[in-house]
Amino acid sequence: MSGNGPDERAGAAADGAGGWPVDLTGVTETVVTTLGPNGLWNAAALGVFTGDEDGDSDSGAASKPPTATAKTWGNTRTRRNFRRQGEGYVQFVDDPVTFVDAALSISEHEAPVLESAAAWTRVAVESIDRGTENGTEWVAWRLRPLESAIERETVPTINRGFGAVVEATVAASRLGVVGYDDDQLRERLAYCESVVERAGGPRERAALERVRECADW
Amino acid sequence: MSGNGPDERAGAAADGAGGWPVDLTGVTETVVTTLGPNGLWNAAALGVFTGDEDGDSDSGAASKPPTATAKTWGNTRTRRNFRRQGEGYVQFVDDPVTFVDAALSISEHEAPVLESAAAWTRVAVESIDRGTENGTEWVAWRLRPLESAIERETVPTINRGFGAVVEATVAASRLGVVGYDDDQLRERLAYCESVVERAGGPRERAALERVRECADW
Repeated sequence: MSGNGPDERAGAAADGAGGWPVDLTGVTETVVTTLGPNGLWNAAALGVFTGDEDGDSDSGAASKPPTATAKTWGNTRTRRNFRRQGEGYVQFVDDPVTFVDAALSISEHEAPVLESAAAWTRVAVESIDRGTENGTEWVAWRLRPLESAIERETVPTINRGFGAVVEATVAASRLGVVGYDDDQLRERLAYCESVVERAGGPRERAALERVRECADW
Repeated sequence: MSGNGPDERAGAAADGAGGWPVDLTGVTETVVTTLGPNGLWNAAALGVFTGDEDGDSDSGAASKPPTATAKTWGNTRTRRNFRRQGEGYVQFVDDPVTFVDAALSISEHEAPVLESAAAWTRVAVESIDRGTENGTEWVAWRLRPLESAIERETVPTINRGFGAVVEATVAASRLGVVGYDDDQLRERLAYCESVVERAGGPRERAALERVRECADW
């Protein structure tokens, strides 16, 4: 709502320094901003994995908060900036257009915290694993929360159009990638489109247009 | 969190009497409870439609809040109770198991407001249209908010597993229904299952198990 620098927000920190501002389970789709060599903050989609019942014991002691990890795929800005800076801002957004822009386009900003972030966490990142899948190099990162703030809370609502935009984004990002079937992806995109037409609001429809513009679809 | 009778909650009313406790756009998937002849409140899934940019003018004057409508399909408990009572409680839930139970099973409760409702609105309902599609009689209802309360707000997070549970519920409810292709629905269910396995947390996995139990899947 208000400014978008993190400094004046530290007072709103959720759990003091250290914790996440929300309970994370499974994979939470977030937007991460990382500082690039051009002095701008690059926004990209990042799936944050949290161990549930298995009780990840990466950190040695049985400590809270749970270990959060994320993978970068390929030689992306996020990977390069993580490596150079060792940190980034993980953001919880609920605007579908912001999510699509981060996932499918180059989205650069002067400040690390986006207008549409409902909450954010500054994290220290450390690479813990790497590998190659279908010719794409991935790096796994451990995310350690340093500082968090909640900007705004909402009554949770369920909109199938919103979910369909997220699925469309995932499918679109895989078009032309080795290991995925383009016909199947396009079929899924058509289904997502029908759901957005039926159940989405204006922001979901705008977001799907952005998917169409950004992807080869 | 606390009790589940609406009376002591009126003080928390969002917009005073009359409004919805959230901005609604497109179709919002809710759970509605309606009082049955057995004295119990029946919980069922209800998609609430709100006119966006078109500016629905059903109510004559250009008045806020926007007109909300919903359709019941077939001779359901919700339709019968709407007809008998002329009202119900529309609830905004974020627990996937509650949503699946309401959508796919007979779910009856002693109190109108569910434990897992983040917010609720008591609505007066009036049938405004009816028709038949593929042999199923539908009735369209106008929903007029009478009283609302917010129980709890959250930082919005995106979990693909949650969206996949909602999609699985829709697909499962159409299995065996004239006008839908079972093979296509089962393919969609398999995809939803793969997303829940990959991205869901424990509640999403439990919810998908419920879909499997309730539906012929």
